[in-house]
Amino acid sequence: MKAAAGGNDKTIVVFSGDLDKVIAGFVIANGALAMGRKVTMFFTFWGLNALRRPETVPSLGKNLIEAAFGWMMPRGSRKLSLSRMSMGGIGGRLIRGIMRSKQVPALEEMMAMAIRSGASLVACQMSMELMGIRREELIDGIQVGGVAAYLEASEHADNNLFI
Amino acid sequence: MKAAAGGNDKTIVVFSGDLDKVIAGFVIANGALAMGRKVTMFFTFWGLNALRRPETVPSLGKNLIEAAFGWMMPRGSRKLSLSRMSMGGIGGRLIRGIMRSKQVPALEEMMAMAIRSGASLVACQMSMELMGIRREELIDGIQVGGVAAYLEASEHADNNLFI
Amino acid sequence: MKAAAGGNDKTIVVFSGDLDKVIAGFVIANGALAMGRKVTMFFTFWGLNALRRPETVPSLGKNLIEAAFGWMMPRGSRKLSLSRMSMGGIGGRLIRGIMRSKQVPALEEMMAMAIRSGASLVACQMSMELMGIRREELIDGIQVGGVAAYLEASEHADNNLFI
Repeated sequence: MKAAAGGNDKTIVVFSGDLDKVIAGFVIANGALAMGRKVTMFFTFWGLNALRRPETVPSLGKNLIEAAFGWMMPRGSRKLSLSRMSMGGIGGRLIRGIMRSKQVPALEEMMAMAIRSGASLVACQMSMELMGIRREELIDGIQVGGVAAYLEASEHADNNLFI
Repeated sequence: MKAAAGGNDKTIVVFSGDLDKVIAGFVIANGALAMGRKVTMFFTFWGLNALRRPETVPSLGKNLIEAAFGWMMPRGSRKLSLSRMSMGGIGGRLIRGIMRSKQVPALEEMMAMAIRSGASLVACQMSMELMGIRREELIDGIQVGGVAAYLEASEHADNNLFI
Repeated sequence: MKAAAGGNDKTIVVFSGDLDKVIAGFVIANGALAMGRKVTMFFTFWGLNALRRPETVPSLGKNLIEAAFGWMMPRGSRKLSLSRMSMGGIGGRLIRGIMRSKQVPALEEMMAMAIRSGASLVACQMSMELMGIRREELIDGIQVGGVAAYLEASEHADNNLFI
């Protein structure tokens, strides 16, 4: 494969499903989008949970383990908890309250803003298979892709983070 | 905005406030400074705690939640604990003791060395607002900046880490 | 030192010893190797555990603290546990079982594949000293190096992750 020519795109692997880390990822993504940069966010492992629809999606044909995983993992961005000082979910609600009071957009607004500004949000195909997450469970506007797609995007980027 | 021309600078987003991760960040930063590279470290969320002064700073006009956060979070680099095997603080003290016995500089010396060698240590403005941390609470030699400053620095860098 | 000319290599600092993060690192590494890219993985702190031999290595002349660390930390990739939903090791076994059933190569196969494809797996010298891990305890095919080696490799890379 020919070597890519570089560029000013940004990629972020969102591996973590921690509320604070996902917020940090979208703050950086929206900052880069505001500078006119192309942004690709690649959601893998626990990061996938940020992309789940909040409501139950019926009859997905999951096996027992997939159903158990799906039930135990947070369903959507509103269910994510802090990486620290989570205090059974209180920490996350506190941070959301503080963000509101300081007029910082909520995570869900940041996500909508990123999608509207043209960011590519890609769900990692292998992680979806491993965790038994179906495409129908993901919010709208999400692509599905593999590691090759991620690496290709990263070769046009000057900033590649793993969060 | 014009695309940046690349360069050999380094940036590190210090999101984590874990002792071991912050040490890793400063080892990389000081290595790059020794090579003559420009280094920008951007402290956000729990990473901010590494920059706090150890002593209480009076009358900062914090509200109740800000005061509670300030009280619960570690005040300065000496209070950080390990991401694993923390064992109620014993793990951190153990690692510090081992570093001393192996003549590895302590985290505080690494931080002073980085500042002396010209690293830019930037506290994330949004995180300071969210966590109610005031400029007066931070050690000397710290700048305050936003995501745009981080992204601009990163466009002159060939290595951008998120720790 | 002369500024490096850029390039399409990849580097990954494997700081974490979490099974899921190490898997993610090797998925990215093997993806890049399949594209013909040069890959350097730098194992530091808990990441070193992924490189340990499963069997005990006798008479390494460790002091008490080093022996204790060695005993408490996971000995090799098969002993790593998940960063979340670990459930006392059940989570890790579950993920390994799912990977097998979906015909995804096991972590150990991914590691062997990366080494066979020419990836440089480097154990961080300073971390080895701090954690009292001896070269004889590491699996075959591992180099030992310091932060300067890491930084030099990273200056020929367009993607540098910290995992």
